[in-house]
Amino acid sequence: MADAMSSLSVAVELARALIRNASVTPDRSGAQGLLADRLAASGFEVFALPFGEGEALTPNLFARLGRGAPHLCFAGHTDVVPPGDAAWSTGPFDGTVRDGRVYGRGACDMKGGIAAFVAAAEAYLSRHGTPRGSISLLLTGDEEGPARFGTVKVLEWMAAHGHIPDFCVVGEPTNPTCMGDMIKVGRRGSINLRIEVEGVQGHVAYPDRADNPVHRLLAILGALTARPLDDGTPWFQPSSLQVTSVDVGNTATNVIPSCASAAVNIRFNDLHTGASLAGWVETVCRQYAPRARVESRISGEAFRTEAGAEVGLLADAVERVTGRRPALDTGGGTSDARFVAQYCAVAEFGLVGASMHKADEHVAIEDLVALTAIYDDFLERLMA
Amino acid sequence: MADAMSSLSVAVELARALIRNASVTPDRSGAQGLLADRLAASGFEVFALPFGEGEALTPNLFARLGRGAPHLCFAGHTDVVPPGDAAWSTGPFDGTVRDGRVYGRGACDMKGGIAAFVAAAEAYLSRHGTPRGSISLLLTGDEEGPARFGTVKVLEWMAAHGHIPDFCVVGEPTNPTCMGDMIKVGRRGSINLRIEVEGVQGHVAYPDRADNPVHRLLAILGALTARPLDDGTPWFQPSSLQVTSVDVGNTATNVIPSCASAAVNIRFNDLHTGASLAGWVETVCRQYAPRARVESRISGEAFRTEAGAEVGLLADAVERVTGRRPALDTGGGTSDARFVAQYCAVAEFGLVGASMHKADEHVAIEDLVALTAIYDDFLERLMA
Ligand SMILES: [Zn+2]
Ligand SMILES: [Zn+2]
Repeated sequence: MADAMSSLSVAVELARALIRNASVTPDRSGAQGLLADRLAASGFEVFALPFGEGEALTPNLFARLGRGAPHLCFAGHTDVVPPGDAAWSTGPFDGTVRDGRVYGRGACDMKGGIAAFVAAAEAYLSRHGTPRGSISLLLTGDEEGPARFGTVKVLEWMAAHGHIPDFCVVGEPTNPTCMGDMIKVGRRGSINLRIEVEGVQGHVAYPDRADNPVHRLLAILGALTARPLDDGTPWFQPSSLQVTSVDVGNTATNVIPSCASAAVNIRFNDLHTGASLAGWVETVCRQYAPRARVESRISGEAFRTEAGAEVGLLADAVERVTGRRPALDTGGGTSDARFVAQYCAVAEFGLVGASMHKADEHVAIEDLVALTAIYDDFLERLMA
Repeated sequence: MADAMSSLSVAVELARALIRNASVTPDRSGAQGLLADRLAASGFEVFALPFGEGEALTPNLFARLGRGAPHLCFAGHTDVVPPGDAAWSTGPFDGTVRDGRVYGRGACDMKGGIAAFVAAAEAYLSRHGTPRGSISLLLTGDEEGPARFGTVKVLEWMAAHGHIPDFCVVGEPTNPTCMGDMIKVGRRGSINLRIEVEGVQGHVAYPDRADNPVHRLLAILGALTARPLDDGTPWFQPSSLQVTSVDVGNTATNVIPSCASAAVNIRFNDLHTGASLAGWVETVCRQYAPRARVESRISGEAFRTEAGAEVGLLADAVERVTGRRPALDTGGGTSDARFVAQYCAVAEFGLVGASMHKADEHVAIEDLVALTAIYDDFLERLMA
């Protein structure tokens, strides 16, 4: 119990130290250096992996202990979103402890998660020495930003150097309200589309001499929203299409405008791909407006981890520590797990995310304690 | 023939004199004073009728010769739209004659029409002396503008003073391409509507926690444009609804916006009224967005002149002079005829409107000649 207690205060102190390294995206702070030193001291082989173009490289870090299987990788990010405009009751980069909570930007998303995993690994290693398998960490300094030179590039490097793990845990805050709520075993995909329709301007009194692009766009959007994209799957909720903007900007009430545009976002399950949806939108547009222009940008494909042994062991660890059996869920936004999924099985489990990206972001010390115990128990089960 | 020739050059010279009085809405030029003097010299009783609020009164003029029936009134406007941004090949207020045309702002819309009627009345009076009926002119200086203190107010004054005519000819340029094309015997109504839908903002990944106002607005606009309002009538083309703008202005592709709005214009025939259409739009909005706000502004109700004896005589005069039987039409935009129609039978016939509101507005001298002859012949038939 003495061991457990010290590893728990270790997580709190490490989380506070990481928060004090103000690392708004892209992380240029000392957070990764601090972690590199710490992991090296525990026997990890540490690789600093800056990637990018020009002068401003994205800092990334990969660290591995052991060469055997199973290879468990913990993935996360040291960068944080800005403090924002709303007032904080404490300095966002002070790591203040108050009322049993640690306050600060990144407390739950996700410096707290990183600290919990490092503390858990240290505790596991102090009990067992080097494990039969491998423990590694993949940390990027650009998850909240464009993410072009972060996790994607580190994974390429890992593949080239024989470091692809058997299983990856992404430490994002996955619990909506309580520790033990939810493990994410996949994510929906996301695609943004911009539709532009050109018509022929004219006077509203003579619509037959004009070609109203608003009416063509309405027909397109009507067809796109006419029925649900699907009814969901056993693992995924139904795909969802949202028209987020329509813009014409015509202030002359007696004029048919020459141009109209709309923005559409689709969150889709694994019945679709970004390409299949882009093709469908193109086809609908061509049907109602042959000259429409469609720009599409796929943020991520839908993916799902097969419910293998590892997810079961992780759920067992969560249940043991929290007394709750976590739901296996695929809802919500996108995360770097979508990149990891292209290489290996991946699940996401971390802290409670309620305060993430808000003012007064915080983590309950008892949640940090619980997460450290969960990661530690998962290591026990996996390496057994 | 000498008489005819001189009355024709009279119309050309009067049109040029009126053009030289630059009378961009609201007319503050000497154009109405010039006409007042001219009509008084022919024996007309002339009333200057400025109406308005504050210092900037709208100049209007009513002139009448004779007290008997039938009372024919010629209605028109001395104000003109601005020269515009496009380059003119001649000064827009010079009244230049070139290649058999008079150039200048107002040449066809509608100083040329006024000049033709004054010349026709003078010619008729010089042949017959005072007629058994009455000839009058209703001229406003604010038709191209807000028109609040123009024709509407003069008609109220005419009603109060026993000057409502039996028949009114509005001298707007009604012929699309050739003299004799078209008499307008009514106009469609026009109503502008602004629809605003409020929803609940949220993240696109969680549409169930938001209420997308764009989708509600799309449903409303889909219902409004789903089918034609009607199939037209023997006298009117089908009513037409045009969505002229949709505005959201949301640039965040991952956010469901809180508000969306649209602008709609309906040109409607006499199967509808402004109020019936505003009520219909309200009902559709309530169906799909109970909290939608609808603002409506009726620019004019649909009206139609019963095809009485006068329209037939006018068509006879047009056919006699041009050799063409004019179509009786109700298409196009609105005009002050919609106000006159509330008091008496009204038809519109004037010059060729192809160059109206454009650079190098002009009228062919032979068209001015023809219109003068048509108005003169119509006076002969009506007063016979
Ligand atoms: Zn995060
Ligand atoms: Zn006009």
